[in-house]
Amino acid sequence: MELNVQEIYSRAKRIIPGGTNLLSKRPELWVPNEWPNYFKSASDVSVYGLDNKNYVDMSTFAVGACILGYANRSVNRQVIKTVKSGNTSTLNCLEDVILTEELLSIHSWAKGARFARGGGEALAIAIRIARVATNKSDVVVSGYHGWTDWYLAANLKDDQLGEKGVHLSGLNAKGVPKELTNSVKVAALHNIEEIENACKDIVGGPAAIVTEIQRYTEVPANFLRDLRKIADRYNAILIFDEVTSGFRFNYGGIHLNHGVSPDICVFAKALGNGFPIAAVLLNEKAFSAASETFISSTSWSERIGPTAALATLKEMNKLKSWEITNEVGQRVKRIWENSVQSSGLPVHILSPVNAGIVKLEFEGPFAKELKTLWCKLMLREGYLDNGNFYATVAHKKSVLDKYERHVDKVVNLILEIYDKENFYEHFSEISHSGFEILK
Amino acid sequence: MELNVQEIYSRAKRIIPGGTNLLSKRPELWVPNEWPNYFKSASDVSVYGLDNKNYVDMSTFAVGACILGYANRSVNRQVIKTVKSGNTSTLNCLEDVILTEELLSIHSWAKGARFARGGGEALAIAIRIARVATNKSDVVVSGYHGWTDWYLAANLKDDQLGEKGVHLSGLNAKGVPKELTNSVKVAALHNIEEIENACKDIVGGPAAIVTEIQRYTEVPANFLRDLRKIADRYNAILIFDEVTSGFRFNYGGIHLNHGVSPDICVFAKALGNGFPIAAVLLNEKAFSAASETFISSTSWSERIGPTAALATLKEMNKLKSWEITNEVGQRVKRIWENSVQSSGLPVHILSPVNAGIVKLEFEGPFAKELKTLWCKLMLREGYLDNGNFYATVAHKKSVLDKYERHVDKVVNLILEIYDKENFYEHFSEISHSGFEILK
Repeated sequence: MELNVQEIYSRAKRIIPGGTNLLSKRPELWVPNEWPNYFKSASDVSVYGLDNKNYVDMSTFAVGACILGYANRSVNRQVIKTVKSGNTSTLNCLEDVILTEELLSIHSWAKGARFARGGGEALAIAIRIARVATNKSDVVVSGYHGWTDWYLAANLKDDQLGEKGVHLSGLNAKGVPKELTNSVKVAALHNIEEIENACKDIVGGPAAIVTEIQRYTEVPANFLRDLRKIADRYNAILIFDEVTSGFRFNYGGIHLNHGVSPDICVFAKALGNGFPIAAVLLNEKAFSAASETFISSTSWSERIGPTAALATLKEMNKLKSWEITNEVGQRVKRIWENSVQSSGLPVHILSPVNAGIVKLEFEGPFAKELKTLWCKLMLREGYLDNGNFYATVAHKKSVLDKYERHVDKVVNLILEIYDKENFYEHFSEISHSGFEILK
Repeated sequence: MELNVQEIYSRAKRIIPGGTNLLSKRPELWVPNEWPNYFKSASDVSVYGLDNKNYVDMSTFAVGACILGYANRSVNRQVIKTVKSGNTSTLNCLEDVILTEELLSIHSWAKGARFARGGGEALAIAIRIARVATNKSDVVVSGYHGWTDWYLAANLKDDQLGEKGVHLSGLNAKGVPKELTNSVKVAALHNIEEIENACKDIVGGPAAIVTEIQRYTEVPANFLRDLRKIADRYNAILIFDEVTSGFRFNYGGIHLNHGVSPDICVFAKALGNGFPIAAVLLNEKAFSAASETFISSTSWSERIGPTAALATLKEMNKLKSWEITNEVGQRVKRIWENSVQSSGLPVHILSPVNAGIVKLEFEGPFAKELKTLWCKLMLREGYLDNGNFYATVAHKKSVLDKYERHVDKVVNLILEIYDKENFYEHFSEISHSGFEILK
């Protein structure tokens, strides 16, 4: 029996607030009413939909969670072994200790680690520890750091985060205690001056400065070094949120490439290649503080998380996955440059030098329409693609060669209808961006 | 090579703040310096330690996370299928929708659900939603609800939670923003008068009343009904924290047995039989509120969680696991009554009528010593046992028959040394209780 995917999603919206458990997997962000939405299986770069169609994933790849491709066999082998031999018990798992040792061996500045099962909660742990270490409350942020109260408090008065260009706009902070109003100052990413001014605005300085390091744009030279100096000057804990950048551009946090150490660094997403695991790395100062406060959860003591992380690290290190994803990203960038950009369509391509992440941004008055059209036409060609590409080691040459031909085809299709009188006949609905309340 | 478990744990304490990721799995809570601490494998009621010894688990059984026993074959079969076919992708998993439908079919008052991967974060979601729904901040709590800021704020001034008998004493709230001081009022469990007084103390009433329903002691008749009335009177969202009680005493939340509906109910632990999954069930009012605020995490969109929950629910329902665990608990209670209690040792046995959880509390001036001794001697007999028993369907009659004989033996051993001159020669260290900073 073929299930009607759109009907299931309509039902889902009536019983799951927001329709999905992760905002970034809402079909409205891609092609409303057409997106396949549910999958039956996934392996390497292929996603087999509930609609019985096969798609090649040229998008965010589970929102950055799978650098080794879907259902990676080396990781799965270890995870299945752990499932069979019991993923939990009243005793602890040694994998927690081994994973800690492994992360410390990569990050020599770190003294220890705690584990959680998601990036959002790991950041909340980091902030708790920073507040213990400094005996202060306020924080300065520069990037996207999850759904929890400490961060979303930034939007209590107005959309500070959206104004500063955080990648999800309009994040609604309803339900965050009003007592936390003014506890977060937001600076634009990589803007050292805004960060310094935000610190100045806080009496006694912030408890923490939290920043993403790199996503679509290269981190400027000396930025991290200057940041470290500011954090020290204000006696603030410096937290690098490497939930997205970690292990994508090198083996470990990308901060290693810059020779600058934070007090705390947070990893999640790619660390477990799709299995939930998050790590909070702590230097000596943060480690002492962590021991003084209560941070504990039953689910953090199961062992699929550290099993998957250990297997993922081993495989990444063996393949030098960051070198492969860099090449893959460069290739996709060239495909877009040679096809989309040279066609004259109004686009802008974003990517750091090491191109593990590449973004195709449509511009001008029809930017949203063009993005929707791109996504819709690529979908018909058998691709999940909204112009936001997270490279994996599973994107082989043959996959990209084929992709190139489909991109050419779709660019030609768009050129045929773009700017023509019947342009709007091609949409039932334009894709959303950011947080919108679904009806 | 035999690994020295105590040496590994010493090392772990130097690199993992607190030594473990879950407080309740710290060896200091059981037998310091002797507890096996790490496991290699676990199945049914057996835990095979890193010390190459086999133990029968007569304790909290992964802190309440495995009602079907370790590595349950029916659950594992489905989980392995999901691992092999890809546990995540850019598309969503249908299992989220099916699990929601299943939970709604059990709880007719509920309109929808959101999922997380741990009880603590699920409670934080519930509180966020309650605050949206009521446009208020303060909460009244009665029980243990995790590590996150909203709850731990209760201990900002002093150990309110410990004073009211929450099962972990001395929980340190360092690092919780001081702005949240006074945002939580604590009432003793099942104490309707204290809850009502706490509500009165809050101008405009609380945003939420949160309570555990049942753990070691039976919920009093009419308690939930009275609670519902108070919540309505103060326009507060009523949250039942069934992280521990859910599916343990019946099929669903134990509130179903009392005919009283909350606005929100939270499940975790046993729901996934050891695999991380937590559910936040919402009534109509809470559902609307949930749609208005930003709650989202990448790890909540993987599908081992809902796969495990669906398989666990199916198996529980098939076996009527709550009837089996009731009988198992009754039997353990009788064993303790007939052996420990009738020996004259100063003990007190706690258990609700439906005895899915049973607790043996040593009393008097040597309570801590006796608990340590119990745990230590039972360990030598091959049991993980600190007098805190969570029944599972894997505790077969033959297991309990054998257990009875070992209990008799240990009681005799204790009687031989208890109250004697050389009593203290039997301890290198007494077990901790609650939160203590480890050195």
